[in-house]
Amino acid sequence: MAQSDTATLILLRHGESEWNEKNLFTGWVDVDLTEKGRAEAARAGELMKELDRQPDVLYTSLLRRAITTANLALDKADRHWIPVHRDWRLNERHYGALQGLNKAETKEKYGEEQFMAWRRSYDTPPPPIERGSTYSQDSEPRYADIGGGPLTECLQDVVERFVPYYTQTIEPDLRAGKTVLIAAHGNSLRALVKHLDGMSDSDIVGLNIPTGVPLRYDLDSDLKPTIIGGQYLDPEAAAAGAAAVAAQGAK
Amino acid sequence: MAQSDTATLILLRHGESEWNEKNLFTGWVDVDLTEKGRAEAARAGELMKELDRQPDVLYTSLLRRAITTANLALDKADRHWIPVHRDWRLNERHYGALQGLNKAETKEKYGEEQFMAWRRSYDTPPPPIERGSTYSQDSEPRYADIGGGPLTECLQDVVERFVPYYTQTIEPDLRAGKTVLIAAHGNSLRALVKHLDGMSDSDIVGLNIPTGVPLRYDLDSDLKPTIIGGQYLDPEAAAAGAAAVAAQGAK
Repeated sequence: MAQSDTATLILLRHGESEWNEKNLFTGWVDVDLTEKGRAEAARAGELMKELDRQPDVLYTSLLRRAITTANLALDKADRHWIPVHRDWRLNERHYGALQGLNKAETKEKYGEEQFMAWRRSYDTPPPPIERGSTYSQDSEPRYADIGGGPLTECLQDVVERFVPYYTQTIEPDLRAGKTVLIAAHGNSLRALVKHLDGMSDSDIVGLNIPTGVPLRYDLDSDLKPTIIGGQYLDPEAAAAGAAAVAAQGAK
Repeated sequence: MAQSDTATLILLRHGESEWNEKNLFTGWVDVDLTEKGRAEAARAGELMKELDRQPDVLYTSLLRRAITTANLALDKADRHWIPVHRDWRLNERHYGALQGLNKAETKEKYGEEQFMAWRRSYDTPPPPIERGSTYSQDSEPRYADIGGGPLTECLQDVVERFVPYYTQTIEPDLRAGKTVLIAAHGNSLRALVKHLDGMSDSDIVGLNIPTGVPLRYDLDSDLKPTIIGGQYLDPEAAAAGAAAVAAQGAK
């Protein structure tokens, strides 16, 4: 297939956040990037600037760490002016009552098995967050039209909210030949990669996505990946980053 | 009229840009903010955070100085997540062949009368920019669908491109009760203010809009201002800023 017949999708997980740095479960808590995270975002923009296909349109979650990552990256790539769409369906997985807890302490308290089930099993959500508690989102205006949003989610819940949005709203842009940038989160991007690569519920458990390294998928005319798993724009940084994500929970 | 019956429009001219600082005609040249301009944008966000009505939707030009101003202000106001619309019709006036020239030198070379005619007359455009010259935009992808955009504009041209966009695209959001933030430029905002306040072609000549101070218009059910001229969120900073704009061209 000729290059001009393919569509291009670029996935970008936000740079390091304040709570990544502190090793806390974040979910829908709207924390900011660290300085390292801002540098990762700028670097992602530099990598994108070298692409043969620059993003034509941006999709983000409603969370600051993804929005700021996209703003910084697109500014660096001279694509700050492209159209923007924001939607809660791209948000990180809601981590329920674990939001705000330290990952290492949680692992110690509940044990390795329960910890990994909450973090990586496909269909086991953490306990729900209490309405009105410190790290709940139920009074935030941005979620008013979805009743404050979920109280907890497993990865399957994320697949079920994000993949229909992808097929109904983002795919038409790809079919129109646009290069689409999605700036989102570890678990919302895992949900999408599972769909793109046709991974099983068990295979997705082992996949980790590093922060701040653009992941390029060239798609054929059926919008299937021409290379399963896509291609990171900086493969070395991606490998190191994925290993670091996998190691979270260690002190 | 009850408060709840009015719509609110917030106009924000970008913070100081690198070429404001150097006293150069900028127009469609895509310069960045200075550190002072970034601080102005953050301050604008702090002022907006204190409003009884936070922006529900953002409109920007396609130029970095307005986009970055909006990004910084909305982040500070905790409204980074609102929907965004970008359109070239909100761009600064195209300054034609003057783009990139020093304002003081231009005044000296062409004389006060010609200088003020180019800067402030309603219907006298500067000489057109040469296609392919250093500061032209005719090869920029963002203007590909408008043939590279205009080669020069007077304020009347800006009124004729921006006001129809305002009435057709932005007014429906206001009628739906949304608070609308417009992040744009000295002359595109002057064009809109002329329309909102029903100013004559000669009265608009004397109006200057300061950088980085949000200007609030409460609108009645016919979308007419309840207070002609609106209300700056920081009146003292606005007065000082408008005087500084009026003084440009002095060395």
